[in-house]
Amino acid sequence: MSTIRVVVAGYGNVGRGVLASLENNPDMVLAGIVSRSPERVKKEISNVPVLLMNDIEQWVSELRPDVAILCGGSKNDLPEQTANICRFVNTVDSFDNHSCIPQYFEKVNTAATASGKVSVISTGWDPGVFSMERVLANSFLPGSRAYGFYGLGENGGLSMGHSDALRTIAGVLDARQYTHAIHASIDKVRNGENPAFTPGDMHERVCFVVAAPDADKEKITAEIVNMPGYFAPYKTTVNFVSAEELKEKYSGFPHDGLVVASGITGKGNPAGIEYRCQWGSNPEATANILVAHARAAVRLANEGRKGAFTILDIPPAYFSTLSKEELLKHWM
Amino acid sequence: MSTIRVVVAGYGNVGRGVLASLENNPDMVLAGIVSRSPERVKKEISNVPVLLMNDIEQWVSELRPDVAILCGGSKNDLPEQTANICRFVNTVDSFDNHSCIPQYFEKVNTAATASGKVSVISTGWDPGVFSMERVLANSFLPGSRAYGFYGLGENGGLSMGHSDALRTIAGVLDARQYTHAIHASIDKVRNGENPAFTPGDMHERVCFVVAAPDADKEKITAEIVNMPGYFAPYKTTVNFVSAEELKEKYSGFPHDGLVVASGITGKGNPAGIEYRCQWGSNPEATANILVAHARAAVRLANEGRKGAFTILDIPPAYFSTLSKEELLKHWM
Repeated sequence: MSTIRVVVAGYGNVGRGVLASLENNPDMVLAGIVSRSPERVKKEISNVPVLLMNDIEQWVSELRPDVAILCGGSKNDLPEQTANICRFVNTVDSFDNHSCIPQYFEKVNTAATASGKVSVISTGWDPGVFSMERVLANSFLPGSRAYGFYGLGENGGLSMGHSDALRTIAGVLDARQYTHAIHASIDKVRNGENPAFTPGDMHERVCFVVAAPDADKEKITAEIVNMPGYFAPYKTTVNFVSAEELKEKYSGFPHDGLVVASGITGKGNPAGIEYRCQWGSNPEATANILVAHARAAVRLANEGRKGAFTILDIPPAYFSTLSKEELLKHWM
Repeated sequence: MSTIRVVVAGYGNVGRGVLASLENNPDMVLAGIVSRSPERVKKEISNVPVLLMNDIEQWVSELRPDVAILCGGSKNDLPEQTANICRFVNTVDSFDNHSCIPQYFEKVNTAATASGKVSVISTGWDPGVFSMERVLANSFLPGSRAYGFYGLGENGGLSMGHSDALRTIAGVLDARQYTHAIHASIDKVRNGENPAFTPGDMHERVCFVVAAPDADKEKITAEIVNMPGYFAPYKTTVNFVSAEELKEKYSGFPHDGLVVASGITGKGNPAGIEYRCQWGSNPEATANILVAHARAAVRLANEGRKGAFTILDIPPAYFSTLSKEELLKHWM
């Protein structure tokens, strides 16, 4: 297997996670980092080239990547970057604004199809692996509905996408958003009720926000709780905290989640499917999944495929470093 | 979507489960049943044609199936049937003798490639969905190992493959095999030890056997505990019971299982992935999965693909009745 050359586009928490993940994936090598602020990144990184993200043709020519892993946020970064970058190189991203995925797919698919590149969109935990588990559960239990829950533990799970969204609000210096599953709703699914939940029936959102000294906290709160898609559909609690308190109590990235489906087989035998994950570091989890999808993107491209893909379009073996022979012999 | 015409080949517990499952999958229709004993099946079935399994060209011509779901046992039926039937029609099967899968794949792949048909092999719970979950966990957590455990409850889980294997032994009139997970081993995996288990470290096997009146029970016991692949690697307990006791206490098909993997992300953050299922009817569970794979087999064939496939080779969307637009809009 020839080594896959990876460019990391965007050097935040997920980008750092991708760098760490590449160390654990011997079939891949970091070709370089591209950023909107290369000088900032160069303070931390000296062993690989760091180039300006907007100079796409230049860094593609210079770094010769097989794939770029796009690590920007879903609110402002990816909607602008992905369709441009996939004109020149295969890409993978974790665009996570669920309600906008169809339009995002369409835009990226048009660009990637025209350029003959592969662009795997919206992968990570959810959308991503959880999407796949929901579709599989529904396929194997027709008539059932599969549900994704996050933050089953006492402290909930940290959502990077929602934290990013908070930080885009004027007057917000820093913020973390913890998602809490509503356990009574999980019980309803396990009981086989196949309930028709609104998003707000399944989760609550708890925000810890550091506001600028002169910021209007009421205005920030209103902007948060009314943000479409991210917060408007949920019971949302906004707590203003000091930068010190945020760092001390809320600096980790723990995350956990559950996909759960109940249904019947045949004429009424009960059936249940559950998929759980627990992560010490949510961005590193996303990074690990992005890296496996980067491998798949290169394989798809090597087959002459082009356009936008999601995890639903990719055979599972494409994520693995293992050979077909090894998979048949030891993993079936 | 045009309706998929399905032939069910073999009318045992899984075959009955497939018939029930087809009722819940409105994109499919039962074209007929083929059996080695059509007269026996006709006593139960009158609404569709029942033909002789060995007359393959005749029933393919008469029933015009898009796919045949092969519901025979792995020990004697499928090794002989699959490579013959896939010369004439796309097939799906649940061949579950793990150690023989590479040779089985090779033989079926040669036949299906020559005939231009698609043959999806070795699907169901394990091998099948559990295989996929093991490979995905390993891909997303490099360096981890993913493990499959069965029968976590007090009564264990009923293994159809192993029960079939028992019934092939001379002097055995009927039998059930319950698999029991060794819980201390699950705990080792959850603790992140990534242990190197032998099969016998993970499961025990408990057999309930009805022997013929004149049978040599010691000989049967010896034949069971020494059967390669199925029983030899495990601590196996053989209990001889009456036909009445077997029917009263062991006639259900409950089943449950767990895939569990622990590892790290980055430089040492803990990570855990678990996939669980619980089934009131194991053969109906296998049947539901076979039916979803039959849909995928037809789609692969419609794309001009040919040869043998496992679940690892199939994009998850191929199992679903939902359109691409619906999946992007509501399931990602």
